[in-house]
Amino acid sequence: MAASNDEGLTVTLRPPCVVGDKVEDIDTPALVVDLDKMERNMDKMTEFMKEFPSCKLRPHAKSHKCPAIARMQIQRGAVGVCVQKVTEAEAMVNGGIKDVLVTNEIYGKTKLKRLASLASKARIGVCVDSIENLRQVSAAAKDQQTNIDVLVEVNLKMYRCGVEPDEVVPLVLLAKELPNITFVGLQCYAGRNQHIRESAMRSFASHDAMDIAKIAIKNLSDAGIECKYVTGAGTGTFKYEGGIGVLDEFQCGSYIFMDVDYCRNIGDDGKQFFEFEQSLFVLSTVHSLQGGSMARAILDAGIKAIGADSGPPEVYPWKDLVYFFGGDEHGIIVPPGPYKLGEKVYLIPGHCDPCVNLYDWIVGIRNNVVETIWPVSGRGPGI
Amino acid sequence: MAASNDEGLTVTLRPPCVVGDKVEDIDTPALVVDLDKMERNMDKMTEFMKEFPSCKLRPHAKSHKCPAIARMQIQRGAVGVCVQKVTEAEAMVNGGIKDVLVTNEIYGKTKLKRLASLASKARIGVCVDSIENLRQVSAAAKDQQTNIDVLVEVNLKMYRCGVEPDEVVPLVLLAKELPNITFVGLQCYAGRNQHIRESAMRSFASHDAMDIAKIAIKNLSDAGIECKYVTGAGTGTFKYEGGIGVLDEFQCGSYIFMDVDYCRNIGDDGKQFFEFEQSLFVLSTVHSLQGGSMARAILDAGIKAIGADSGPPEVYPWKDLVYFFGGDEHGIIVPPGPYKLGEKVYLIPGHCDPCVNLYDWIVGIRNNVVETIWPVSGRGPGI
Repeated sequence: MAASNDEGLTVTLRPPCVVGDKVEDIDTPALVVDLDKMERNMDKMTEFMKEFPSCKLRPHAKSHKCPAIARMQIQRGAVGVCVQKVTEAEAMVNGGIKDVLVTNEIYGKTKLKRLASLASKARIGVCVDSIENLRQVSAAAKDQQTNIDVLVEVNLKMYRCGVEPDEVVPLVLLAKELPNITFVGLQCYAGRNQHIRESAMRSFASHDAMDIAKIAIKNLSDAGIECKYVTGAGTGTFKYEGGIGVLDEFQCGSYIFMDVDYCRNIGDDGKQFFEFEQSLFVLSTVHSLQGGSMARAILDAGIKAIGADSGPPEVYPWKDLVYFFGGDEHGIIVPPGPYKLGEKVYLIPGHCDPCVNLYDWIVGIRNNVVETIWPVSGRGPGI
Repeated sequence: MAASNDEGLTVTLRPPCVVGDKVEDIDTPALVVDLDKMERNMDKMTEFMKEFPSCKLRPHAKSHKCPAIARMQIQRGAVGVCVQKVTEAEAMVNGGIKDVLVTNEIYGKTKLKRLASLASKARIGVCVDSIENLRQVSAAAKDQQTNIDVLVEVNLKMYRCGVEPDEVVPLVLLAKELPNITFVGLQCYAGRNQHIRESAMRSFASHDAMDIAKIAIKNLSDAGIECKYVTGAGTGTFKYEGGIGVLDEFQCGSYIFMDVDYCRNIGDDGKQFFEFEQSLFVLSTVHSLQGGSMARAILDAGIKAIGADSGPPEVYPWKDLVYFFGGDEHGIIVPPGPYKLGEKVYLIPGHCDPCVNLYDWIVGIRNNVVETIWPVSGRGPGI
């Protein structure tokens, strides 16, 4: 590791394996993706999109933070990607992605300067929900003689960012006046609805959300402004919201990996939501195996290797074995099942996005062999 | 970002500020430590150690993963550091620390080869709890003609790694036979006891744990083996375990930072456990501020910037304001309190260790100015 300097710290990150290794040779804990499963998920989404001919797919890259995966999605028809922060946008543009939408507000001169500098290399869109921020975006784009597309974010009763439908028109009118920005449409994303378990309830919630979007669109129409572009939806809601006719673009991200939490959703058939396959795993090793009345296998993957915001991971393929977090760097499987000391264990993370964020690499495996190792270029809490 | 190669990915990590910046100029989310508070915590621990003249302090570096902080601890009398994994050991040895104890089992040739290579530059200790692993450690040390100190880990009814007290003697006898390793003692660490809330219950639990340690020590004594070195305890238990006379060394880590969870412990006086100060913060920015009946401030720090395993962060200094996780990259404060759009907000993380692990840098501030920026050299899920 080299010394730090004003430009930052230069560090060599060692991957956990090399291409051609077998799974049992991967150093752990490691983040691995089953390429067959992930590709089937991508292909399945391409099929689903045919049901919504007026909608485009713009996958959310906050799930993978990895330009190589973004390129695979675009090769399958995605129009670009979404990101949630400037570091992710930089990773994507540097990785060759030409159309990046920041589905979030970016505040302050420093970050907006960096965002504007990307706009000379790719189409950049960003959300706004305040006059002050809108003026900042315009000023940053003007400083660099470029253009940033802006979307007004609407609060669909999720109470995160976003203005109320009756606050949309003044922002859009100002956006149309200010230099070096182009008003392109609305962001209408209903985040929490993704995880409503029952299919019918998810459908009702999607209709409620889109009803609010319709009010915002009507307010614009009443003010003489056509809204050609509305973006939203996620892996849990696109099938419901897509049929309502409001959205032009889906932001689904998790469909490529899935996770324990997403598979708690119940599909139309009353069964667990396995239309997409769980393709992402934390690979761990049994580094202690203890017997007796409290027989257990202890793994080298704990909170710091998995993330805990959506509960513990599941043990694959032995879902009857229970994983407990044993601290920062330990997992405990009770009973130890078929596992031996030194054996590799596949864990399905509770929530794929924060789990990916813990790793510098995603290891792509096929038929038990390492086929590729991708850097998670957009990793980090985001500066 | 340079291309990846067999040696790893070379990447330049940009810090969120430069030395001399004011807090309001730090890009967010950023991990900041109040240096006055952290130093007072270190000094206070030095004072506490005087109550236990036969015990040494070996702070756990998994809390900070940062050699610069480890050096400050050693300057104040610590005998070395603990780590939990090989990457952390490498970071510490490369950062000049000469005595590193891995308070965990390290399994497999690849990791043990790396660990043994450190033993030529520093005193390295590691825990073992199986014959197979003990043989691996010896073989790895022999391959590199070096020595690794081994400790047998005892299960203090925490049911993570560690053998039962009646399984200790055979392991120690084997350790004394095998080449290139030195049996030095026992690890008797009762992790879960750190977070028992009531002072008296924490004391009882500490006695129960040490009773098990005593059995292990007596078993060794009965076998004619003197045990000169027992290591354990943490920030929540050292005051109790230290008085029992079993431990020679404390592994406290969190005392330098504290966090929301640790301050839920109740001290001897029946009050919240604030003997150490909360010195670690996630610095965030209000990037959206919405009014109306659901008035809220939305921050640029969510799950990926804080970690969620011990619940949400507290807003500092306004503990009456409630922070909700708003997703991967959003936090929501309700009510918005005194905050304005663009204002910096200090958040106290629920659990300091996994939070630090999310960052590449710790920014040291004093009197509202950036005094130092330390790389978190041991970051990562650990390969």
